[in-house]
Formats: sequence, structure tokens, C-alpha cells
Amino acid sequence: MTKHSADLIMQRIDEKSNPSVVGLDPRLSMLPAEIREAALKEFGDTFEGAGYALLQFNKQIIDNIADIVAIVKPQMAFYEQYGHHGVKAFQETVQYAHAKGMLVIGDSKRNDIGSTAAAYAAGHLGEVELFNSSQKSLDVDWLTVNAYLGEDGVAPFCKMCEQYGKGIFVLVKTSNPSSKQFQDVELTNAGKPLYVLVAETMHTLATNYIGEKGYSSLGAVVGATYPEEAVVVRRILKSSYLLVPGFGAQGGGAEDTLPFFNDDGYGAVVNSSRGIIFAYKQDGCAYQEDQWTSAVRDAAITMRDDIVGVLRKYNKLPHGW
Amino acid sequence: MTKHSADLIMQRIDEKSNPSVVGLDPRLSMLPAEIREAALKEFGDTFEGAGYALLQFNKQIIDNIADIVAIVKPQMAFYEQYGHHGVKAFQETVQYAHAKGMLVIGDSKRNDIGSTAAAYAAGHLGEVELFNSSQKSLDVDWLTVNAYLGEDGVAPFCKMCEQYGKGIFVLVKTSNPSSKQFQDVELTNAGKPLYVLVAETMHTLATNYIGEKGYSSLGAVVGATYPEEAVVVRRILKSSYLLVPGFGAQGGGAEDTLPFFNDDGYGAVVNSSRGIIFAYKQDGCAYQEDQWTSAVRDAAITMRDDIVGVLRKYNKLPHGW
Repeated sequence: MTKHSADLIMQRIDEKSNPSVVGLDPRLSMLPAEIREAALKEFGDTFEGAGYALLQFNKQIIDNIADIVAIVKPQMAFYEQYGHHGVKAFQETVQYAHAKGMLVIGDSKRNDIGSTAAAYAAGHLGEVELFNSSQKSLDVDWLTVNAYLGEDGVAPFCKMCEQYGKGIFVLVKTSNPSSKQFQDVELTNAGKPLYVLVAETMHTLATNYIGEKGYSSLGAVVGATYPEEAVVVRRILKSSYLLVPGFGAQGGGAEDTLPFFNDDGYGAVVNSSRGIIFAYKQDGCAYQEDQWTSAVRDAAITMRDDIVGVLRKYNKLPHGW
Repeated sequence: MTKHSADLIMQRIDEKSNPSVVGLDPRLSMLPAEIREAALKEFGDTFEGAGYALLQFNKQIIDNIADIVAIVKPQMAFYEQYGHHGVKAFQETVQYAHAKGMLVIGDSKRNDIGSTAAAYAAGHLGEVELFNSSQKSLDVDWLTVNAYLGEDGVAPFCKMCEQYGKGIFVLVKTSNPSSKQFQDVELTNAGKPLYVLVAETMHTLATNYIGEKGYSSLGAVVGATYPEEAVVVRRILKSSYLLVPGFGAQGGGAEDTLPFFNDDGYGAVVNSSRGIIFAYKQDGCAYQEDQWTSAVRDAAITMRDDIVGVLRKYNKLPHGW
């Protein structure tokens, strides 16, 4: 039988004693010169070359963190912008991460209605019907989903999660400044903001999909930049994993991640992208460009130690870590 | 100088005297046997074969409607589910439609924050930076965008629209039953539902991007299934084009589209997908499967005549049609 996605993510996090996620958001202009030059030489100034460069970069990152970090999160925009060559690099990144024993959160924020949402769900999480067979396609383990269209746009993803042991993170309170504009609007009669209604609605759905360890395959995105809102969402979505972007580059620190975790020390995964993958570009980095993989590894270790340190300090460290 | 996207869409609609959009939402299992068999024979039961079949289907549809219809709307989910081979079919469909003089609305409902939204905007609407050059990538003319993340998630798309003569349709009131759940919630103090706040916020943004004919490159999606809400949105987003899905298969009829148009007969484009592209599968269709392209063409003509008939009946027919 297929393992439940929440049970699996908890198992992998336990194995590494590390709830952090490395965001694979490559920017061609920021890749190390050796990777850029090799790709340019082999493929010329083409989309194919761009896709190749992204993949080589990701592979080296994965090689250098796979024994420390359980989860990577490729951000689809940075692949899709290169068209089908970029999407190919995304797919091969997913396959490579899986081969190295990592879980993959596809950060694609997909959303649509009915049969169209079902097509996204099949492509990203399930199997797609070909002429005479069904086959896995993009095959991420968890996918981010935008719920503005309502529950009937989320349900097809949940169905696929149940069938294939996958999970989703629904956008509840995003990390950006403008998230206040719609997500925080106060609702009449309810006396609460919209993001709370979204969280409550998703909790009702989430309770249908609980794994053996008590967590659901329906999780939520709540930005590290909003720790007060996290307290509210954490209380509502008791059995849901929270995906926490905005750590590091966007300003959230390790102490800020505390309210995202349940008292058992589970229930949250914290993402950092630029702070890890482009660590060698940061002021004061001890490594030169030709040692960029060491900078990546060190940054991943520091992030783990910072977050685990906070969990320990506040007595939330999971048993056995 | 690049032509403004709203001026261009109005010009193309005028040339065809037709505000309808044909949705290219292919489903492999529903394609005519001749296309399926040819693809299976050449590529086997593979993703490559699926992508090839979708493209052949789309090309024949475009060949049979390009003199009648100004705009096609490929729904990304139905391509992306086949991974990079599907995205390649999407890109080649866009190129083929452009070569035949049609405009393309990419129905991808993209959404993200800051630099990530900018990457989606560059990929779908603008140019993408390679090693030594910038090149067009997915290159649709208009893109659907989800605004749940707030204005700073929409602004990067607007910027790209201005630079490259492109447009976006922001989801305001979607056509599905659950759209009530979040989009219709009443807001405290404001005495209005969320979708109205979204429309008002987008109108403020839209006024910065008006073309010579008075319409903005920032449009909105409002489902044909909600004509009463359309009256409200039409009043707020005076200078915005409305993309109207849900006509036909989802239940909206030609008379229901009237409130989406301004009094000048412009300001709305009405989409039908299954009702056109799979016309030969419908009960009572006069054509056999081997005449499926005639069924497509007839359905497109009927849709145009129905909508134009309603505009004429209510004195909204644009001058010169």
C-alpha cells in the first residue's frame, strides 16, 4: 500500500533530524561561471543550454545536501520561463532528487476548476492517461495550490493525494507585503479575516485525509514573515503541515519559526532558497566561487542547527532527534 | 512602437466582427481516431506521442476557424500534465496560431510574489534572459493571473505587459459553484464582497495601462455563470476587458453574456472550449467523426452568430460590424 504523504514527510524529517527545505530557485545569471561556460559551450545561447545549466546546478546542490536535508522545493517559475526545455530540467531535477532519497515539494501554486484542476493534479501528483496506459508525469511529492477559486478547485488535488500518497500545501497567508490586501480583509459577521476562513475551510477538508501519525495530506503555506498569523493558523489547522517560506532572504529568522511548529516539534517545514543555493554570493561568505558547493553545504547545516536550536530551547524537540 | 494589447485585441475582434474565443482544451481520449492512431503509430504510447497528437488536433482546429475567430485560449493544464512534451505542444500551438494571424490567451492562472512573479511574467509575456541575449519564450498575448497574493503579485505582470504590448486577465469571479466560498464573502465596513474589492483594486491598477481606444491591458475573468455579478464588475472595471468562461458546456447562454459587454459593444470576450472543439461528440451533431473539422467550424459560426445576435438585439453592436 502507498505510504501516506504526511507519514512519509515525518519519517524523512526524523531521519535527518531536520525540518528545513532547500528551495531550488536557480537564476541563470547567478550560476557559477564553470556551469554557465560549460552549458554555453555545449548548447550555445539557447533555451536548451539554459535548461542544461539549471539541471547541472541543481544536481550539484542535491549531491552536497542530500545527507543533511530531507526536502527540496523547486520553484516552477524559474524553470517554466525557459519553456519546455526548462520544464524538462524541472522534471529531471525531481527525478534526481528522488534517486538521492529526497522528497520534492513542487512550488507551482496551481489552481483551476473541476476537470482542469483534475488535469493539473494528475500531471503533478498522479498519473496521466496516455493512449493505452497511465504514467507518472511531473511526479512531485507535494504541490502548492492556490484556493481563491474555492473548495471545488482544491478537492481534485486531494483526491489525487489520497490515491497516490501525495500532499498539497494550500496558500493561506503568503509571505509578501501585499498579502494583507486580500488575505487580511475582515469578514462581516464572522469577525475574522479571510485567511482564517480559508484556513478553517481547509481544516474541514484536511480532516478527511489524516495519516497514521496524525497529520493530513492537506497542508498550508504561511509565510515566515507573519509569525503572529502563524499562531492563529497553527491553532486552526491542528493536523496540517505548514510550509513556511520567507526564511532568510525575506527577513524571517529562526526564532520566528517557533509558532509554526506544534508542541510535538512537528507540523512545519521551513524553506530557504537564495540563502542556501547562492550562499557563495553573500557578503562575508568564507568561500570563493570555485568552492560554491561547500558554501551551499555549510549554509544548509547552519540553517538546520539554527532551527533545531530554537526547537530545543523551547522544549519542542521531537523525541529521538 | 509595440501596439497596446487592448488596442490590438479590439482591432482583431473588429476584423472578424466576433468577440468569441475558442478554448483549446484537448483531452487525448476525446481526439478523433485518425489523430490518435497516427500519433500512436509514430511515437508509441509515450508523452511525446501525446504532445504530438494535441498539436495536430489544435492545428486542424486553427485551420478551420482562423478566418472566423480572432482568439484562441489554450488551457495550460491540458498540456502541462504531459510534462515537457506537453509544454512543447503548447508552445507550438501558440506559434501556429500566431502564424495564422490569431491572438492567444494563455489560460495558466499563474501567481506568485516579487521576483518569482517576474519570472512567470517574463516567460509567458516578455523575454527571458539567456547567457548573452534575451528571447521570447511562451509568448502568449494575454495571460490569466490569480491575485489572491495581492497587488505585488500582479504588478510584475503589468510591467511586462507595458513593455511588450501584452495583457492579463485577473481572476475576479470564477465560473465554478465554489467561487461563492471565498470570492463572495462580505467584508466588514466595506459592505461588499471580496470579489468587488479585488475588482476595485485591479481597476486602480488598470487605469495606469490604458490604450488609445480607452481599454486597459489589465482585464478580468468573470464567469458566464454569474451574470448578476458581471453587472457589478462591469461598472467597476469600466476600462477593462472581461474574459468570460463558462459559456456553453458550463451552462451560460448567449443572452447571459450581455451584461459583460459595455454599451459600446466592446469590453468582453466570451470563451467556449468543449462546445466547439468537441462539437462532433455532442448529441444531435450532424457530422460523423471523420468530418469533425466541419463540426468545429459550424459550432464556431453558431457561437459567433448567437452572441452577435444578442448584441444587435440590445443595440450594443459595435459600429461597422
